[in-house]
Amino acid sequence: MDPQTFLDIATKVTKLKMYPFFDIAHYTLMCMAVREDIPQTSSGSPFSRKHPLSCWLSSMLLCFGGSIIANMLLGESMLSPFKDHRSILTATAVWYLIFYSPFDIVYKIGRFLPCKLVVAALKECQRAHKVYHAVIHTAKLYPNAYFIIIIIGTVKGAGSGFMKNFERLVRGLWIPGTNELLQPSFVTKACIVASSVFLLERLNYITAPHPLIYFGIVIFFVYFKLSALLLGIHDPFAPFENLFCAIFMGGMWDAMRRAVTSEKKEEDKENKNDIPVKSKEDKKKD
Amino acid sequence: MDPQTFLDIATKVTKLKMYPFFDIAHYTLMCMAVREDIPQTSSGSPFSRKHPLSCWLSSMLLCFGGSIIANMLLGESMLSPFKDHRSILTATAVWYLIFYSPFDIVYKIGRFLPCKLVVAALKECQRAHKVYHAVIHTAKLYPNAYFIIIIIGTVKGAGSGFMKNFERLVRGLWIPGTNELLQPSFVTKACIVASSVFLLERLNYITAPHPLIYFGIVIFFVYFKLSALLLGIHDPFAPFENLFCAIFMGGMWDAMRRAVTSEKKEEDKENKNDIPVKSKEDKKKD
Amino acid sequence: MDPQTFLDIATKVTKLKMYPFFDIAHYTLMCMAVREDIPQTSSGSPFSRKHPLSCWLSSMLLCFGGSIIANMLLGESMLSPFKDHRSILTATAVWYLIFYSPFDIVYKIGRFLPCKLVVAALKECQRAHKVYHAVIHTAKLYPNAYFIIIIIGTVKGAGSGFMKNFERLVRGLWIPGTNELLQPSFVTKACIVASSVFLLERLNYITAPHPLIYFGIVIFFVYFKLSALLLGIHDPFAPFENLFCAIFMGGMWDAMRRAVTSEKKEEDKENKNDIPVKSKEDKKKD
Repeated sequence: MDPQTFLDIATKVTKLKMYPFFDIAHYTLMCMAVREDIPQTSSGSPFSRKHPLSCWLSSMLLCFGGSIIANMLLGESMLSPFKDHRSILTATAVWYLIFYSPFDIVYKIGRFLPCKLVVAALKECQRAHKVYHAVIHTAKLYPNAYFIIIIIGTVKGAGSGFMKNFERLVRGLWIPGTNELLQPSFVTKACIVASSVFLLERLNYITAPHPLIYFGIVIFFVYFKLSALLLGIHDPFAPFENLFCAIFMGGMWDAMRRAVTSEKKEEDKENKNDIPVKSKEDKKKD
Repeated sequence: MDPQTFLDIATKVTKLKMYPFFDIAHYTLMCMAVREDIPQTSSGSPFSRKHPLSCWLSSMLLCFGGSIIANMLLGESMLSPFKDHRSILTATAVWYLIFYSPFDIVYKIGRFLPCKLVVAALKECQRAHKVYHAVIHTAKLYPNAYFIIIIIGTVKGAGSGFMKNFERLVRGLWIPGTNELLQPSFVTKACIVASSVFLLERLNYITAPHPLIYFGIVIFFVYFKLSALLLGIHDPFAPFENLFCAIFMGGMWDAMRRAVTSEKKEEDKENKNDIPVKSKEDKKKD
Repeated sequence: MDPQTFLDIATKVTKLKMYPFFDIAHYTLMCMAVREDIPQTSSGSPFSRKHPLSCWLSSMLLCFGGSIIANMLLGESMLSPFKDHRSILTATAVWYLIFYSPFDIVYKIGRFLPCKLVVAALKECQRAHKVYHAVIHTAKLYPNAYFIIIIIGTVKGAGSGFMKNFERLVRGLWIPGTNELLQPSFVTKACIVASSVFLLERLNYITAPHPLIYFGIVIFFVYFKLSALLLGIHDPFAPFENLFCAIFMGGMWDAMRRAVTSEKKEEDKENKNDIPVKSKEDKKKD
């Protein structure tokens, strides 16, 4: 491909407006996540019929989870996503269609694989957009606080994962044994990487033109999302992580300790084998 | 009644000072709610004797629950109710009398029905006052954010309901299966209505004089509270809600689906009945 | 000891720099507390090998628990401890050494009693420093809010206790039945006392020179910590508390009620004893 054309495409991607399509894709996936997380009860009417308020609020908590948690962490108003009527009403419309559409048609379309792929791809573009703007915004507030910049970038990009436990609590469920920090998903790790890249760009450690970097992150998100959906590759970072843990997170020392312990045990065994022989000799002598 | 006299009464109600009596009524009901929520243990001394700090803090969390949650949501200091020494000391005195009065006399008086009615009526006046001031205060901070205004109005009016789960956690109890959002009580719904009315008034959609609107809300709160206490009518909104859910929250489509499904099933049954007949005929032919 | 020398020592203690040694002592104790709180599983690799992110975050939550909770309560940014790279990196280094050092040597040294005593003594100096600076800082923000000043002083001094439940949640554990407010530890109570002393000093109710007061608090913290470690005296306030509870928290009235009730019962018994006698007499009469 002509480099200039490629750069033009990248520039266009950088300037994409999120509002109608990308945001709707995000809300669709979040509402479907809420719906799929509701435990199936055999008897009577489903949860969404009995508790519409709780259902709506838990969907909104996931849709705007990133902003809510980031605002809470930064000591700003947690309700600020509710300031924007257009987003809230769009999210509410999506929620309504996912849960209450006639013959469940919207939900069924959403689960149809080609649609799912398109929606997921749009959502990953929106994720890159959110991470980038979170990094820029936080870097203005706390110019030298690199940890805070990466934390906020990650939380805005992968907010729904961190919100999961509390969103479930709104629905009367409490599952403390799992959380995003205990078993970080690929999305969370990818957001950490993306935030770090954007931070390094801002600190002038990466000198490529901005649209290229941004477009690279978008492709990175979309590529791994589609490969997860189509090929079932859920965590491409796993081998690197395992290697890192094996070297730095005690794996090496544990192995050395095991080796030393087993050597000692073998020596002990040999000694034990020696002793009875000696005692036998002693017995013979006796 | 003479309209002018009525307007005068309404104006007086609008200007009532909350401090000594209305606030004390509120604290009394909140401390009694804490006391009645403590599970009865047969053995030994009760919870309030063993854990006075936890008991005091959970009472304070309910007494000032509305302000605490509203401040948290708006990113302000959650401790700001503790700035006002007079309120805290009054609430502490009420807490002390409810839990530790000699021969439990204050608690017994509080449970005596006529006293209960008076205290509940005073508390409902205070609720109307809190909702109104929350709406006015929030409308100054976020002039066009209607969702935020209604959320804060509701939270300030019915804060103890939303605080319940966390207040229990302070006492070492954790009951995640129920919360105010899953099964909103009448008080919460009434606060949503009252906040909406005050918001509509502020936006000039309601043109009645302010004291009349305020007095109307007070009467609405007091009337339904007394009817709940005396007649056991706990949720006058239930019929409207059920109607709304039946129409918009999937009820209609579910019914249509059931109808279609049962028609299909009947057709299937008929077809099944036909087939064996045919096969019988076939057999005969054979 | 010469009073002037004593005052000189006290002044030096007041001006001690916290950074290298006192902070490291604090981080060491916090990371060891996390490690000792992890439930032992017999099978396979330990928690720190499987979930390094969750382990790191829960250690950081304890190390900076006081600041995080205090900032949350005051509506400031919860992430502000993460602004200071030097502290975070030091805490991370300590965490790494406690959990992953070769042959567990750092952890074993930390558990060796003489080292433990030195580290605990350093940590108590840091606690006094934190309480004092929290009181001064809060008194500037809210000059007349005595409750808030004492709450923030206590939270900054004994923050890890209040953070415990949430730190466990990060590690996938949820133990709602115990918390610092239900069973306040000696440290929490001592921090309340220290905050009150510093507040009284600020309000000019205590007129001793500042270094003496500060040094007194440091000695108070260190003395009771060492006596807890060496002699097993865990709560020197317990007798005073029990006395206070017996007088004011219902103990006296409960005793009086029991006395009255048992008197009544005895009277009833006597009456009952009388009645059968009478009835016998009646029978005889019959």
